[in-house]
Amino acid sequence: MRLSRYFLPTMKDNPKEAQVVSHRLMLRAGMIQQASAGIYSWLPLGFNVLQKIEQIVREEQNAAGAQEILMPTIQSADLWRDSGRYDDYGQEMLRITDRHDRDMLYGPTNEEQVTDIFRTHVRSYRNVPLNLYHIQWKFRDEVRPRFGIMRGREFLMKDAYSFDLDFEGARRSYNQMFVAYLKTFARMGLKAIPMVADTGPIGGDMSHEFIILADIGESEVYCHKDWLDLDVLTSEIDYQGDLQPIVDKFTKIYAATDEKHDPSLCPPEDLVSTRGIEVGQIFYFGTKYSEALGAKVSKPDGGEAVVHMGSYGIGVSRLVGGIIEASHDERGIIWPEPVAPFGVGVINIRTGDEACDAAAEDLYAKLTTAGREPLLDDRDERPGSKMADMDLIGLPWQIIIGPRGLKNGVVEVKNRKTGETEEMTPEAALNKLAR
Amino acid sequence: MRLSRYFLPTMKDNPKEAQVVSHRLMLRAGMIQQASAGIYSWLPLGFNVLQKIEQIVREEQNAAGAQEILMPTIQSADLWRDSGRYDDYGQEMLRITDRHDRDMLYGPTNEEQVTDIFRTHVRSYRNVPLNLYHIQWKFRDEVRPRFGIMRGREFLMKDAYSFDLDFEGARRSYNQMFVAYLKTFARMGLKAIPMVADTGPIGGDMSHEFIILADIGESEVYCHKDWLDLDVLTSEIDYQGDLQPIVDKFTKIYAATDEKHDPSLCPPEDLVSTRGIEVGQIFYFGTKYSEALGAKVSKPDGGEAVVHMGSYGIGVSRLVGGIIEASHDERGIIWPEPVAPFGVGVINIRTGDEACDAAAEDLYAKLTTAGREPLLDDRDERPGSKMADMDLIGLPWQIIIGPRGLKNGVVEVKNRKTGETEEMTPEAALNKLAR
Repeated sequence: MRLSRYFLPTMKDNPKEAQVVSHRLMLRAGMIQQASAGIYSWLPLGFNVLQKIEQIVREEQNAAGAQEILMPTIQSADLWRDSGRYDDYGQEMLRITDRHDRDMLYGPTNEEQVTDIFRTHVRSYRNVPLNLYHIQWKFRDEVRPRFGIMRGREFLMKDAYSFDLDFEGARRSYNQMFVAYLKTFARMGLKAIPMVADTGPIGGDMSHEFIILADIGESEVYCHKDWLDLDVLTSEIDYQGDLQPIVDKFTKIYAATDEKHDPSLCPPEDLVSTRGIEVGQIFYFGTKYSEALGAKVSKPDGGEAVVHMGSYGIGVSRLVGGIIEASHDERGIIWPEPVAPFGVGVINIRTGDEACDAAAEDLYAKLTTAGREPLLDDRDERPGSKMADMDLIGLPWQIIIGPRGLKNGVVEVKNRKTGETEEMTPEAALNKLAR
Repeated sequence: MRLSRYFLPTMKDNPKEAQVVSHRLMLRAGMIQQASAGIYSWLPLGFNVLQKIEQIVREEQNAAGAQEILMPTIQSADLWRDSGRYDDYGQEMLRITDRHDRDMLYGPTNEEQVTDIFRTHVRSYRNVPLNLYHIQWKFRDEVRPRFGIMRGREFLMKDAYSFDLDFEGARRSYNQMFVAYLKTFARMGLKAIPMVADTGPIGGDMSHEFIILADIGESEVYCHKDWLDLDVLTSEIDYQGDLQPIVDKFTKIYAATDEKHDPSLCPPEDLVSTRGIEVGQIFYFGTKYSEALGAKVSKPDGGEAVVHMGSYGIGVSRLVGGIIEASHDERGIIWPEPVAPFGVGVINIRTGDEACDAAAEDLYAKLTTAGREPLLDDRDERPGSKMADMDLIGLPWQIIIGPRGLKNGVVEVKNRKTGETEEMTPEAALNKLAR
């Protein structure tokens, strides 16, 4: 992409309305624009990152055996009356009346709807386990939306729902999602700690929140200090095999949210008390919805079983902010490579200079061919402004091309994270970055 | 994908509620499930096709120079009051009141919102032309939703918006989208005829609807019979070059919708009068929204210009039905290759037979490696039922593996569209299909 044609409305100054760094940097980097309170438009740079995060979530869900569907945003109130949640949910649910005066709502979550899909089509134990997920916009009418897309009203969530014959099956499904979540967040360069959590309005017996430690976190969290040194999960997983050892490894070290914190379970000298951002939560809630909505399958030995269910959420849009909170400096965002909107930024320090233009175009073409998705700053702007913008939007690598260097046959390669720069020939820069 | 693990709830009988073939086949093939009137969930097979169509639309928009953003589904009523459309829009607009009693709405289209983004960030002629698009769910509260996802209430639309300094620029942007639409529909195996059209509630001076001829079409359309033999546009396009000759070629032959039909423009003996399904519409509407909302840029020679705009819609979810209407037979759907949910269906006629299982697994593995996305029917079902399901879901190619053929070292390769079958060795089948 060429910056001269790319819609990237960056800002030099910090917007007054933003209280947290991710909100500030997303506005300044031209990633989002507020449409109304707690509701945002995603501009090209922001949408690009959102798509990359969504794709990682999708790949890891598919790898774990979940199947992607798409449920609508607008739901009928009827199913929610059947489950008893229509009245329970309170003012966070956006209630709507359609032109025929039917009660509708903008889905804050989809347990009822997916259970309706299941009960319509699945009748036999032979068709479970089944795990269906979707990545869809949700709405929660927060009384005081804040922190930009971190706590907005309209937000993108991946939610998966598992159906099993019994508790043992449901436990396997829970473990699959537990491990898939560890992999998902690790791929984004995040350490998300699974913490024993309260089940809240979803209900159920067992739940973990996946928490990124961050000072601006909305909730108090507690964990054993061993967590700070524990490596994230990067190995290949056989999701059909026994995942319990992996789950045990990541649950035996103490970690709990505020509601579930039990000081007796961790020696005080080892306890870390800090704040965290929730990026995912998984639940086992047994037959709460399947009982209410009549989701049953035949059993192998005759008779019927009410299926055991779990649900598994990831805050896809929130992750954009979460990653920025975890990875930035005073100059701007520092994207981990797998979610970076572009792989390499090419800065032509002097657009219009024949040698600079030729070198920049050549590197741009070759990086494009190599699939590195370069962003070329070919604008007619001051060098300082180009450098500041490139640092602000946080691409992992920069190649800086200026007339002085070119006379010596070199360009500058900069690592955004470490700030280290190195002079080398354009060919060497390509060899280094065009993997 | 293995059918034994795939959530594909096919039906043998025609569902009573479906009046048109695409609705019937989408329900029978387990692609969708009605959630409430005019609102559908997309099950794995349907969602797969929807994604493939969405991706083709995206690629062609990007090729034409449009940039992808994402605007939210829920909009504030304020901007619509500024443009004057809040009261005009009538009952098709889903109006919502949030917990703070603010008037909101579920966007049926996004002219106001995108103009707000533009006016916030763009002030100079140097930053136009600009074309921003998004692929987002819309809601129109149809009084009588019907034909399944063809005329639903919640539907997926691609809408692009162009901003130019003057009419000449806007004309170039219009031409870019005109040509991109010809390419987009051609890639899906569709002949969509651009017809002179009325501008309706969007407003404006110039509009084309892209129409697939089909008996079940909602509207009467008229075109010169030469359209029936005209080839679709498949050549490479230089979107920065002059597109007027291409536009002229595809507009000089008469074609108009009912509202714009002028019998004097086509010899009666050459006129085809039929019905059609609209899959896209493009508009040039000048300064209608930019004037109302104050979207201006500085001019090269000083002073300010109110920008000229156009908007360009494609019914992404509707296309799934449109393609089925255009491509099916009495046994089911016939997917054009580029939108087929899986490239090849592998039917193991006798699951459990050692030789059949081995041959099926081997072909499945090799087709997977070749990137052909095979679907393996490894279920324990009757052969007739497997064949019927595979015909119903309409994958372009089938490989049928049975014990009798394997004894002679052959499998059967079937072309779903022509129905032609051919016996050949598994190696030959791979050579044929693993391109």
